[in-house]
Amino acid sequence: MIIGVADTTFARANMGAFAIDELKRHTSARIVRVTVPGVKDLPVAAKKLIEEEKCDIVMALGMPGGKDQDKVCAHEASQGIMMAQLMTNRHIIEVFVHEDEAKNDAELAWLLEQRTREHAVNVVLMLTRPQEMTKLSGTGQRQGFADAGPARK
Amino acid sequence: MIIGVADTTFARANMGAFAIDELKRHTSARIVRVTVPGVKDLPVAAKKLIEEEKCDIVMALGMPGGKDQDKVCAHEASQGIMMAQLMTNRHIIEVFVHEDEAKNDAELAWLLEQRTREHAVNVVLMLTRPQEMTKLSGTGQRQGFADAGPARK
Amino acid sequence: MIIGVADTTFARANMGAFAIDELKRHTSARIVRVTVPGVKDLPVAAKKLIEEEKCDIVMALGMPGGKDQDKVCAHEASQGIMMAQLMTNRHIIEVFVHEDEAKNDAELAWLLEQRTREHAVNVVLMLTRPQEMTKLSGTGQRQGFADAGPARK
Amino acid sequence: MIIGVADTTFARANMGAFAIDELKRHTSARIVRVTVPGVKDLPVAAKKLIEEEKCDIVMALGMPGGKDQDKVCAHEASQGIMMAQLMTNRHIIEVFVHEDEAKNDAELAWLLEQRTREHAVNVVLMLTRPQEMTKLSGTGQRQGFADAGPARK
Amino acid sequence: MIIGVADTTFARANMGAFAIDELKRHTSARIVRVTVPGVKDLPVAAKKLIEEEKCDIVMALGMPGGKDQDKVCAHEASQGIMMAQLMTNRHIIEVFVHEDEAKNDAELAWLLEQRTREHAVNVVLMLTRPQEMTKLSGTGQRQGFADAGPARK
Repeated sequence: MIIGVADTTFARANMGAFAIDELKRHTSARIVRVTVPGVKDLPVAAKKLIEEEKCDIVMALGMPGGKDQDKVCAHEASQGIMMAQLMTNRHIIEVFVHEDEAKNDAELAWLLEQRTREHAVNVVLMLTRPQEMTKLSGTGQRQGFADAGPARK
Repeated sequence: MIIGVADTTFARANMGAFAIDELKRHTSARIVRVTVPGVKDLPVAAKKLIEEEKCDIVMALGMPGGKDQDKVCAHEASQGIMMAQLMTNRHIIEVFVHEDEAKNDAELAWLLEQRTREHAVNVVLMLTRPQEMTKLSGTGQRQGFADAGPARK
Repeated sequence: MIIGVADTTFARANMGAFAIDELKRHTSARIVRVTVPGVKDLPVAAKKLIEEEKCDIVMALGMPGGKDQDKVCAHEASQGIMMAQLMTNRHIIEVFVHEDEAKNDAELAWLLEQRTREHAVNVVLMLTRPQEMTKLSGTGQRQGFADAGPARK
Repeated sequence: MIIGVADTTFARANMGAFAIDELKRHTSARIVRVTVPGVKDLPVAAKKLIEEEKCDIVMALGMPGGKDQDKVCAHEASQGIMMAQLMTNRHIIEVFVHEDEAKNDAELAWLLEQRTREHAVNVVLMLTRPQEMTKLSGTGQRQGFADAGPARK
Repeated sequence: MIIGVADTTFARANMGAFAIDELKRHTSARIVRVTVPGVKDLPVAAKKLIEEEKCDIVMALGMPGGKDQDKVCAHEASQGIMMAQLMTNRHIIEVFVHEDEAKNDAELAWLLEQRTREHAVNVVLMLTRPQEMTKLSGTGQRQGFADAGPARK
């Protein structure tokens, strides 16, 4: 079992290092890492991890900026990640933190780490115990900020 | 005949359970279920249900959030579901309830269940009695809230 | 020669019936019809008509709603129809009437029928006498409401 | 060498005729023409010109309307033209004049002709003398209205 | 090792020349250049550089205009570049400078050159020393204007 981790030099925290640290707490799977300039370079990087490095699943980690043009770039990156999954029949878990989700640099640093770690746990569950995911169906899980919980209490 | 059901841990009600309960009232087809984190993970999950689990049709169940960024995610998920259908020549019935369609949590819970159940009936018709769908052509059917009915009474 | 007709239960008039009636006035080609829930189910339905039913051309008939979310759905459906054409090298003529194009239900019913019929004529021309289409190049043709005509009178 | 020309009955001037007239002034390549209803029918028409008529390059000529919905259609058409190029490894030169780019019908007619003719010259250069294109790199060329010129004079 | 460079006649500075000059300072790889009219012609040009000219990586250099319609064109070009990468499993580094990012022509000329040169350095690193990219992970790198730096100082 091989897990791919792709991150960027654009992001403002070492998301790949957080992911690898968290993955190692939950699995002994081999991890392959690659770093690209920005979020739009992640889709092909993830696809290469799957097809050339034989990864079973990939984490695509990025921090889109807060400007309008950055939102468009994030959308293009997400569309690419979607297509890469469909072309390979492998999950690529997108972990994006938009810079303007955080009130300040301290919260941004916290969120970049927290969301990455929570998604890393998902990745391990999906790969090794998918039935655990189904137990969580419809429970309003969120990654980073607090969970929303179910609508009917 | 095999029906796939894919839902999410992000949604605020167990949409997969509603779908399976309703499907079983109308068909004895085998059902395969998978749960993923969010709506953007549904397209490849649905494609894998078709190609790896041999499903003839899939229900993709999700609850996009109400914020602007959530709308973009829903759009990306829908584009992925579209492409997955075209790559497999199989219908994937998208059942999305946007969190802001409902006035409050109680209505949200109701809508998540109601829309899922009505689409489950469509899935069975499409799979087993497609001519019944044609009888309903142009009658303004809606899933969840009330039907619109035909324009010319 | 086989013509496919795909329509929806969501629309508020029987667009498939209008199309078939008009097609039969102009051609003796065989017609295959299928009805799906909504516009987002049309692309794979059209692709299946081409690949499984051997249709030479398909009419994809739908009535997107007037709300913002409906506009997004229509866009996704159109992108799917585009891709289905490119994957099959066959024309799929999209006949969409947006619910808010009409002032009231009576005009909506009229427009759903009129636009469908005018596009059906195009379909027959494209399939049987493409040189007739070239004679109409740049003449500002519209389907449903009045033609715009050429810019240079 | 074969050049494809695809235009529409929706446009308000005979763009295909302008293209063919201009192409013939610069090349003796064979030209194949097809006319479709609107811009969303152009991508598959262009792809068929490449794959079925063996065209080396195609001009896709259209005039999107000025309303919001027309802008969406133009976007979908452009995405389709993009994908058709990637699926065939052939250039499809998109020549779109948005109806609201012109102040009045007279300017619209002029612009439809002028932009088409200038792009026809590009097509011949790309096909026969690509090194001439490189000489024009970064010179702020525009088709139709005046060139912008380089930023550094 | 072969590096492709694709640029446009629309841009207002010779981006291809800047790229080639910078690449040559850092690598002896062979460089193949092509120039097309505008950003929407770049994706297939880049794909042809990869598939027909055997380039290992490509720089796609363009300057989208500042109007709303230009933003749509840039988005379509970016989507095409994304898809071209996924179809070839090769990186295509998009270097776009939006005309309205700069306050005046002098800054525009500077930015077109500066961003191109900084991305050329990335291209060489990605191709020859990818582990150097990982050392820069999460450090808030930017191309052209000043780096953002890490969120946690």
